[in-house]
Amino acid sequence: MKLLMVSLAGVALAGVEAQTARPAPQARQTDVSLASVPKLQWKQRAPGVWMAVIGKPEVGPMAFAGSPRGAALEKLGSPAFPAALAEARGSVHGVYASVRLPLAAEEKLYGLGMRDDGRVDLRSRSYELKVTPSTHAPVPFYISSGGYGVMINTARVLRIQMGIGNRKDAPWLPPEIDRNTNKKWSSRYPSDAVEANITGTGMEVFLFAGKTPLEVVQRYNLYSGGGCLPPRWGLGFWHRMHTLTPAGKVLEEVDEFAKRDLPLDVIGLEPGWQSASYPSTYDWDPTRFPDPAGFVQAMSARGISLNLWINPFISTKSSIYPQLLPYTGSHMYWLGAVPDYTLAPAREIFMAHERKTQLALGISGFKLDEVDEITPEHALFPSGLSGDQMRQIHGMVMQKMQMEAFRGMNRRTYGLVRGSNAGAGAYPFALYSDGYTHRGFVQMIATASLAGVLWCPEVRNGASDEDWLRRFETALFSPVMQLDGWSSGVKPWSRPAVTDAVRSLMKLRYQLLPYLYTAFAEYERSGVPPFRHMVLEPGYAAESKVVAGAVNSETNPYAESRLIEVADQYMFGPSILVAPLFAGESSRKVVLPAGKWFDFYTGKFAGDGETIPVSAPLDRVPLFVKDGGIVPMMAAVERLRSLPGEVPLEVRHYGTKEASYALYDDDGETFDYEKGVFSVQVLRAVRAGGGLKGEAGAASGPWKSRYSAITWKFMAN
Amino acid sequence: MKLLMVSLAGVALAGVEAQTARPAPQARQTDVSLASVPKLQWKQRAPGVWMAVIGKPEVGPMAFAGSPRGAALEKLGSPAFPAALAEARGSVHGVYASVRLPLAAEEKLYGLGMRDDGRVDLRSRSYELKVTPSTHAPVPFYISSGGYGVMINTARVLRIQMGIGNRKDAPWLPPEIDRNTNKKWSSRYPSDAVEANITGTGMEVFLFAGKTPLEVVQRYNLYSGGGCLPPRWGLGFWHRMHTLTPAGKVLEEVDEFAKRDLPLDVIGLEPGWQSASYPSTYDWDPTRFPDPAGFVQAMSARGISLNLWINPFISTKSSIYPQLLPYTGSHMYWLGAVPDYTLAPAREIFMAHERKTQLALGISGFKLDEVDEITPEHALFPSGLSGDQMRQIHGMVMQKMQMEAFRGMNRRTYGLVRGSNAGAGAYPFALYSDGYTHRGFVQMIATASLAGVLWCPEVRNGASDEDWLRRFETALFSPVMQLDGWSSGVKPWSRPAVTDAVRSLMKLRYQLLPYLYTAFAEYERSGVPPFRHMVLEPGYAAESKVVAGAVNSETNPYAESRLIEVADQYMFGPSILVAPLFAGESSRKVVLPAGKWFDFYTGKFAGDGETIPVSAPLDRVPLFVKDGGIVPMMAAVERLRSLPGEVPLEVRHYGTKEASYALYDDDGETFDYEKGVFSVQVLRAVRAGGGLKGEAGAASGPWKSRYSAITWKFMAN
Repeated sequence: MKLLMVSLAGVALAGVEAQTARPAPQARQTDVSLASVPKLQWKQRAPGVWMAVIGKPEVGPMAFAGSPRGAALEKLGSPAFPAALAEARGSVHGVYASVRLPLAAEEKLYGLGMRDDGRVDLRSRSYELKVTPSTHAPVPFYISSGGYGVMINTARVLRIQMGIGNRKDAPWLPPEIDRNTNKKWSSRYPSDAVEANITGTGMEVFLFAGKTPLEVVQRYNLYSGGGCLPPRWGLGFWHRMHTLTPAGKVLEEVDEFAKRDLPLDVIGLEPGWQSASYPSTYDWDPTRFPDPAGFVQAMSARGISLNLWINPFISTKSSIYPQLLPYTGSHMYWLGAVPDYTLAPAREIFMAHERKTQLALGISGFKLDEVDEITPEHALFPSGLSGDQMRQIHGMVMQKMQMEAFRGMNRRTYGLVRGSNAGAGAYPFALYSDGYTHRGFVQMIATASLAGVLWCPEVRNGASDEDWLRRFETALFSPVMQLDGWSSGVKPWSRPAVTDAVRSLMKLRYQLLPYLYTAFAEYERSGVPPFRHMVLEPGYAAESKVVAGAVNSETNPYAESRLIEVADQYMFGPSILVAPLFAGESSRKVVLPAGKWFDFYTGKFAGDGETIPVSAPLDRVPLFVKDGGIVPMMAAVERLRSLPGEVPLEVRHYGTKEASYALYDDDGETFDYEKGVFSVQVLRAVRAGGGLKGEAGAASGPWKSRYSAITWKFMAN
Repeated sequence: MKLLMVSLAGVALAGVEAQTARPAPQARQTDVSLASVPKLQWKQRAPGVWMAVIGKPEVGPMAFAGSPRGAALEKLGSPAFPAALAEARGSVHGVYASVRLPLAAEEKLYGLGMRDDGRVDLRSRSYELKVTPSTHAPVPFYISSGGYGVMINTARVLRIQMGIGNRKDAPWLPPEIDRNTNKKWSSRYPSDAVEANITGTGMEVFLFAGKTPLEVVQRYNLYSGGGCLPPRWGLGFWHRMHTLTPAGKVLEEVDEFAKRDLPLDVIGLEPGWQSASYPSTYDWDPTRFPDPAGFVQAMSARGISLNLWINPFISTKSSIYPQLLPYTGSHMYWLGAVPDYTLAPAREIFMAHERKTQLALGISGFKLDEVDEITPEHALFPSGLSGDQMRQIHGMVMQKMQMEAFRGMNRRTYGLVRGSNAGAGAYPFALYSDGYTHRGFVQMIATASLAGVLWCPEVRNGASDEDWLRRFETALFSPVMQLDGWSSGVKPWSRPAVTDAVRSLMKLRYQLLPYLYTAFAEYERSGVPPFRHMVLEPGYAAESKVVAGAVNSETNPYAESRLIEVADQYMFGPSILVAPLFAGESSRKVVLPAGKWFDFYTGKFAGDGETIPVSAPLDRVPLFVKDGGIVPMMAAVERLRSLPGEVPLEVRHYGTKEASYALYDDDGETFDYEKGVFSVQVLRAVRAGGGLKGEAGAASGPWKSRYSAITWKFMAN
């Protein structure tokens, strides 16, 4: 019907018959067949690494990764192209670029970034990999039990279906089940492919071959330029101050650690070190920190490294705001402008300020907060990136910039970052999150190893002494052992009933330094993560359990079942299995991989390829060492930064196997190790008479190992 | 570094230096200023309705809406263009199309589809409007308290920021607050605009003016071709059978209603009526329904209308599968192919089958389930639509097709649908959802009126007799009063302790039919929703309450506050306010809009523009009638379908005001009312002596009103 139109000043008029200029489609116009989707053309990029391009790829996180580790990749070998992936396909249609990667029936799929949902095998699940304050590092990289891994290099949100969702013309389809009459009906029919999409003009797909999931992860890490080797002090104890603590009170608190015989290496200052925040000024607050240089020097004199909180949003009150403004995006966040640090001039402005006012003073690192939150998707940055792209790679951009700043001074850093993405292995930053379930802690530590990142819990408070202490124990076995009092002001001695336990746990962390630092060196040299998901451990086979759902017409009308997987244990270094206990539990089950395993504390045989019940007193984490495990330990010290030139070692051997272990040492502070300035000393347990004896080879390399006097301890005896 | 490459059969090789073909951007290339975003060019489409186009619009839900109601729109008036919107801007950049719509400081924003999150004013919130099994109808339409509404016509997921998120060069910015020292810091700084984006090539933006939010909603509904007028039987009681009930048992259950003196109008058959499901065959099951024609006839003889469950996914076992296959999309859902019913040939195949095997037999309507779930975003349909687009509009496409089928037979239908979108007002379908909180029920009924749709609860079970009965009461005051036993087999008499209460509630629904049916007629004629959110009621002003958050270093480290709004009451027809009670509560608060309000049951004065405490026995819903409210009621009957030609009325008048009411009647079954075959009878309460007296005018129109004998009841007496 024709409507009567009235004239209106300043607004154009038109007669109308239908509402929309764009009526519904009328005819078939699109070929929807699988055959119409082109096969990917794979090109080799490195031994065991291939890439295919779909459409016109846009910037992805790999543009901000480290350089591929050529020699290490060659050393890792040159596996064959995973034949099944020759059938992979992909195309661009409208605003979507998509990819289809075939799966065999029995393949299991792991990874897709850090997760705390208890999920291990991701098959038959769908995910949206979007960096947010609750996902942090939803890395688009997965590992197949079929001998390969896939990484999709895109700075767009990736939606991915892990073997669920069927094409009507798929090469394989499961049988259709009548739900009316067959109880086996499932809302999760299996499919024969991973399918994924982005809204964008294209993407790069990387394929990593490997005999085992661990080899796939190593190859992915090495190709990304990782792993990283933190400075030694970074592996000591970290304590974050309440946000408004002034300089004098920080010094007092550091001295309090010494008085209480508690080791400490890093103090973290929260937003209050800045003259205003949020957004950040990156300038010292003149009231709380009237003499930054003097303050940092006083901390340094005490052997303490300082870590400063920042977020990427710059205040109008910052001294560098006028310089950075032309390089900021269209939209603000919390009223802070958002600099585009993908651009060299922006990085130079920021780093010049950071060098002069922080690094030159001796600041050791940063906590890069809130790089997982950002302006709307349609926001524009001067480089041409949009808000969604910047959000996905913001953590990468910030880590790369910090790494540049510290590397320029030949000083290693070890920091914290709240968001990351693919290709981050080279960056010495541990992720953290506001998520606070203890089981989540364990899952994040473990799944980070499937994503080329590190994760650490921020222990704040606990529901009880027990809960707090148990969380503390998990922090001990993580990349950063940390207590975070930014909001509550909590300290290691805040709960007197368990202060002694806290002290002995902190000291255990320091005793294990030679083992932990060597594990990081192995990460740097061969890509083996120091903390590992169990699926990366040879011989591991945990059974998952399907719990049938009861019909409930309100909460579960479809009687859907739940899958329960083992997600509460992980590996620490080459030979230790960590099985944390949780508040309210005096015992738990542990799945031991094939082979003999021994109790860390007593050396007693614990089991062999089986699930065992374990219990532990409040101040002990159940730990199991594999047969032939060698664990070098030193005496606890007050600071790692001032470790003496000669450190006696107790080298423990577990079980009955002959074994060897390559103990690593270097200056712990610089990048000189990249030029060969390190030492490796091979420790061997060899058969002698009816038992074993220990042998220490000479330390090789130009660095003089500080581990001089070695005492062997055969724990099986 | 150059890597050694090994030759590999069938896979191309290349030397590599960096990981990615696409390095990080190096230079500024994009103008990020607000000035670079063009202003929208508004064109008038109808009185009080304007549209602007951004980029190249794609298909949106309006392509599936009814035709604009020209005469009714003209009658509603021709308000001026809302001047502030002349500053609206929008553009397309890369894969994003975005829009910016200015806001004044005090504007409140309502709508964005159905919601059960307790939110009323959406200002300072962000939403992603994606049709899913938990959102159902996230309609991209919002209403401003500033005298206009905006609808964005897109079949893409819309991300929208309702006055939150600041452009760095916005005309207005709030002052920056230092969070270190100022407790007023907020993570939700206000902004001066709504901003929204999609990934797509463009979109249409519609602007609806209106003096009040109700006028805006009316204009939006009328422009969409609505509201709808259901058949009269649709307003009676609905009962859904357990899914596997065979024909004979259905008949028995219907007879059981009569035996127990319980009214009933509609029986719903769940998936089990089909020969296989899920996916759907759309064919009768020969075991459970060996004689569909005979069965439907037997039901019809009892005055019962039949509603059949379907979902849009077609089984290979369906008799029409081979015909529809060429019109299906690339991907299946639950192993059902997904026909592209935007294409006329696909619709014709489906409707021919439906007409022949269902409509011709006397089936009265359908429950269109799971139109809110669909294949992956990158799926392709023969029309060229992608999976994300189809998901957003699937409910619209299905409703339009059903409407076409029934209209073709001049039979009104009233059905259920689980997903919808903008422009649905013409379609006589009530949405429903699996969400099952009772407070959620109330919020969904109310918010649906801000989105041009209807929503009804599916009462299944309850935690207790009380809970179940209270839910039943809310169903009474909803577009469809229904009990859903598909999974549990629950019946109105399943809880003997409250069966009498259930009976009296069911009868109240039937007594109120003249009032309810007239309210729907008003919806059809002027776009006023029969069940309305309180923000559409003149004189309504509820205070929201900000509850300060306590610092908790684990659960609320930012001490964020919560906003509590009144979201537990709504309007029913022109003059009744419904304030449901919830299990465990013997009393509640009710916010009465300005003006005098009276208790529905007693006629007593309840309050005037104030918040009052109310209580009610278990079998009563607190109801309040505004001063001058006229409520025509009839005696309860067993069936509405067989309503006699003469129905005596009791016409209640509340309060002391003179008032008039236009009572509507028609055949209740066909579309003849569109040709004028209806009657309107004006009922007046006029001052007479010290009191009021009732007058009934002659029923106008060619239809002979069945409401003959009218008895007035002045409730204030």
